Amino acid sequence: MTTLQDRLASLGHTLPDLGEPAANYLHHREGKGLLVIAGQIGTPGRGALDASAGRAEAEVAALKLLAVLDAAVGGDLGRVRQVLRLGVFIASSPGFTEHSTVADGASDLVVAALGERGRHARAAIGVASLPAGAAVEVEALVELVS
Amino acid sequence: MTTLQDRLASLGHTLPDLGEPAANYLHHREGKGLLVIAGQIGTPGRGALDASAGRAEAEVAALKLLAVLDAAVGGDLGRVRQVLRLGVFIASSPGFTEHSTVADGASDLVVAALGERGRHARAAIGVASLPAGAAVEVEALVELVS
Amino acid sequence: MTTLQDRLASLGHTLPDLGEPAANYLHHREGKGLLVIAGQIGTPGRGALDASAGRAEAEVAALKLLAVLDAAVGGDLGRVRQVLRLGVFIASSPGFTEHSTVADGASDLVVAALGERGRHARAAIGVASLPAGAAVEVEALVELVS
Repeated sequence: MTTLQDRLASLGHTLPDLGEPAANYLHHREGKGLLVIAGQIGTPGRGALDASAGRAEAEVAALKLLAVLDAAVGGDLGRVRQVLRLGVFIASSPGFTEHSTVADGASDLVVAALGERGRHARAAIGVASLPAGAAVEVEALVELVS
Repeated sequence: MTTLQDRLASLGHTLPDLGEPAANYLHHREGKGLLVIAGQIGTPGRGALDASAGRAEAEVAALKLLAVLDAAVGGDLGRVRQVLRLGVFIASSPGFTEHSTVADGASDLVVAALGERGRHARAAIGVASLPAGAAVEVEALVELVS
Repeated sequence: MTTLQDRLASLGHTLPDLGEPAANYLHHREGKGLLVIAGQIGTPGRGALDASAGRAEAEVAALKLLAVLDAAVGGDLGRVRQVLRLGVFIASSPGFTEHSTVADGASDLVVAALGERGRHARAAIGVASLPAGAAVEVEALVELVS
């Protein structure tokens, strides 16, 4: 069984400890063969960043998202059919335009970790603020094997 | 049959009158055993608020969302399997950080009303503005019994 | 076979050329009989607009979204059961309140093109900024015939 941990280790990443959700919600919820992963934030307190630093924060958030996915499927990547959607929310000023660069920090990691199954539709949005002052938040809709 | 109205009455709430959607959309749409509930706003004209007042507005929006859910299932809670996702959008300034407190105003009510079935994944986001100057908007994805 | 192109032509519209996605994502992803359409933006470089100009940009974005839908179903409208959700993101200043007017630019076109199947739940949100400086971004969740 190929594990997500093995894949990420080969990319130089370690799955972070998830911890409890910050409030009254679940990290993930599954129904009808679909897995909804709650919005995962990058490093607290970063606020709006330039494209390069924002991209790094998108990767941080995506790594947490992959940790939730790993927990949801009990470490068995064989249960993941495909990632249907990523929602990428980026703290930004009104003039910011490089959402695609930032969001690719999340998308590139998800595709590197999951291969073809990791390819996804996406909405990338510049928002006023994010929980705990994070720069990026990433949520996902994943199709499971059923 | 336990009704959502009974549950909410025991919590001191009354389901609001839904009225027609404000524009060319539906309050809800159902397909493949999934129910999508359109974004429901809190009180018009409130704009960005502090965490405590924002929490109260999240509850107002969630109460409307539960009224839509009630209408969608014809008052029969037995048709609700689980709430998969809440999207909570919070009008905020760039420095706002207490999204979790505000969003729990919605999540706490949904969980109180629906119990374990009401627990959900969530994305909480700080946005520039919301329809009609509301402070909070809440949307949902719900799994129905099928 | 009634095509989406025929329908739009009768409304005075032409499906735009899609082109490749701007970054590492797919225009659409299908699973469990659901089609997720990635966020499609209006004209680059428009920034926040008034309600009337914003409405026109929402129509531009929705036309791209319909082009993605057309590609996803191979031009066969018979494969579309219904549009479940539109997410409409509108670049705006904090005081903006006319999201419904802007978002109807997208909703009206989708309903005109698809009829009853095009009616949908919706979340309309005012955001700080959008990719490439667009004024509006529209994403969709569509149920396919299966």
